[in-house]
Amino acid sequence: MVDYIGVERVQELVTHIGPARFMEALAAEIEHDYRRWGEFEKSPRHAVHSPVGVIELMPTSDGRLYSFKYVNGHPKNTAAGLLTVTAFGVLSDVETGYPLLLSEMTFTTALRTAAMSALAARRMARPNSRVMALIGNGAQSEFQAIAFNHMLGVRELRLYDTDSRATLKLERNLLKLGLHGLRIVRCSSTAEAVRGADIVTTVTADKRNAVILTPAMIEPGMHINAVGGDCPGKTELHPDILRRPDARVIVEFAPQCRIEGEIQQLEEGFPVTELSDVLSGAGVARASANEVTIFDSVGFALTDFSALRYLHRLNREQRVAAPAIDLVPELDDPKDLFGDLVRESSVTFQAPGAWSAPADIRRAADSRLGS
Amino acid sequence: MVDYIGVERVQELVTHIGPARFMEALAAEIEHDYRRWGEFEKSPRHAVHSPVGVIELMPTSDGRLYSFKYVNGHPKNTAAGLLTVTAFGVLSDVETGYPLLLSEMTFTTALRTAAMSALAARRMARPNSRVMALIGNGAQSEFQAIAFNHMLGVRELRLYDTDSRATLKLERNLLKLGLHGLRIVRCSSTAEAVRGADIVTTVTADKRNAVILTPAMIEPGMHINAVGGDCPGKTELHPDILRRPDARVIVEFAPQCRIEGEIQQLEEGFPVTELSDVLSGAGVARASANEVTIFDSVGFALTDFSALRYLHRLNREQRVAAPAIDLVPELDDPKDLFGDLVRESSVTFQAPGAWSAPADIRRAADSRLGS
Repeated sequence: MVDYIGVERVQELVTHIGPARFMEALAAEIEHDYRRWGEFEKSPRHAVHSPVGVIELMPTSDGRLYSFKYVNGHPKNTAAGLLTVTAFGVLSDVETGYPLLLSEMTFTTALRTAAMSALAARRMARPNSRVMALIGNGAQSEFQAIAFNHMLGVRELRLYDTDSRATLKLERNLLKLGLHGLRIVRCSSTAEAVRGADIVTTVTADKRNAVILTPAMIEPGMHINAVGGDCPGKTELHPDILRRPDARVIVEFAPQCRIEGEIQQLEEGFPVTELSDVLSGAGVARASANEVTIFDSVGFALTDFSALRYLHRLNREQRVAAPAIDLVPELDDPKDLFGDLVRESSVTFQAPGAWSAPADIRRAADSRLGS
Repeated sequence: MVDYIGVERVQELVTHIGPARFMEALAAEIEHDYRRWGEFEKSPRHAVHSPVGVIELMPTSDGRLYSFKYVNGHPKNTAAGLLTVTAFGVLSDVETGYPLLLSEMTFTTALRTAAMSALAARRMARPNSRVMALIGNGAQSEFQAIAFNHMLGVRELRLYDTDSRATLKLERNLLKLGLHGLRIVRCSSTAEAVRGADIVTTVTADKRNAVILTPAMIEPGMHINAVGGDCPGKTELHPDILRRPDARVIVEFAPQCRIEGEIQQLEEGFPVTELSDVLSGAGVARASANEVTIFDSVGFALTDFSALRYLHRLNREQRVAAPAIDLVPELDDPKDLFGDLVRESSVTFQAPGAWSAPADIRRAADSRLGS
């Protein structure tokens, strides 16, 4: 049997531990894995694009465990009451090739994205960053708010979305949670939200080259957490922000980010630093209080690897029996696959006479056989 | 909810319809899809190799449906009582990106591989082929035997395996089924089994460049169904068989086959015909009764696409409620992902005080925050 974490189970697990602590612990797992970056087999994700969205597979392995995530991105889905992004993933044992865990990753992707944002910001934002602008108040926004409140100490959130109902929904959810002395300010434009912020988080969803942030909005010392631009033709930042002489761009995995990130707008050789170098100490996250730091996040397979391994452990640590599914056969004799497929009771059913194909197929076969 | 076909469900479905009819119907689905080859997005599979095996992802799409299969290959597994090959797959709706079906594919891969072999042989083998040598009597062998008996009219099977217990197991399973007037001959070597056969099927499992068939064994007019050589460094045929002037090599998808098939042993430009061309009439499967035809089968994503769509329909046609799993959340408001994650009952649990990180993490964060 393969461990199974469905929607209900992940709700149980996250509710039990609490989303803030879940993301804090997950960020520690992610940091641990990115520090051993060289051990992983890495490739840009496999994407199948259609006019309305994209379906992607994101595999990676450290030679002991293997994982992949399936994730879609369909901005128009919300109009039909469906999610823009859904995801699930599998963790496997490299030694046998057997899957260990199948898990939902719609919720988990939201959690790991925010955990990753906060992990990067802990290194990249100025110390004592307390004010964050949150542009885009959709499905990802609560997770960013909680992670930055809990892990960075953000105490003022400045909200803006073109859809004011999304902002009200975010505000309602945050008030219900009662985060650490958090002040929430509803703003009437991106410019108003960004003005004076220490950190600017963009989590918008349109699949196009948008200009959510313009060069004029950016102030020295800001940290920009650019999450929403994450596939070809989908960006949020004016390219001149990236080209500022005082800007420093950090990415997850440069070859993938050059295809999918904000830097897809720039020349191939544009200098970036990979987060793994920052975490290991080989790279610089911020050289001065006046630099503009940009985390050009697109989501990378290794982050999902960390999330699946963390979920697998968390799920097993719970005392109650972990749910499982019969995704892989368990045979007495591994060379006798067939013997396990057709059940004994079928032997009579499968007597010679019952094997005839439907008449039309039979006729085609007979003519082929010359009989 | 996502439809779910686990081991138990696929056993039910195949037992109900019977493996021979299942493979016949599946072959018709596969033929239908290969005839519209140009509509599919195709890529060689994504493989992660380790010293003991390989884990692969095989995606494809026709712009309406999307599918991928996860499959491993670990020949040493049988020594530990595990399967060499396990697999599962997903069928999705391109319009929304939502998964429609998660299905086991360990059994299904065995079924689709044999269906594909028989489909190709119906075009490639001489009419009235009645005698088949079956080299390698492991997990795939019963499926090949049944498919060729049912779809080609094979009436004599000549069996050989280095492991005589595997041959006994195959014979036992076939006798139990009572196939159409099938004569079974146990042979003491590959050469003995192959001598005088119309069709030679090789389904061995070693992950190395083996020479199961030598040039001296091959007789004019034979059809070789080469199934076991299916990844880099894993082949079954001596390359001189492929180089015979009277040989014709048919493959599923040339770019993948040049990496994984028997033709990996030959120069890049070696001429091959894709099966889709044979099925559509654009290519020739066999020009004369004396040609040696070789189906260099490695398994391609499109065949799994056909199998998943067929299973999805079959599963839904059954009157009993089809099993399903909660792999994707169903939300009242698709922008309110968070509101559905943390359950109402947790609001008290998640009061501010309960949100503190463990002391050590808190200390690290505090020092980072300069407090």
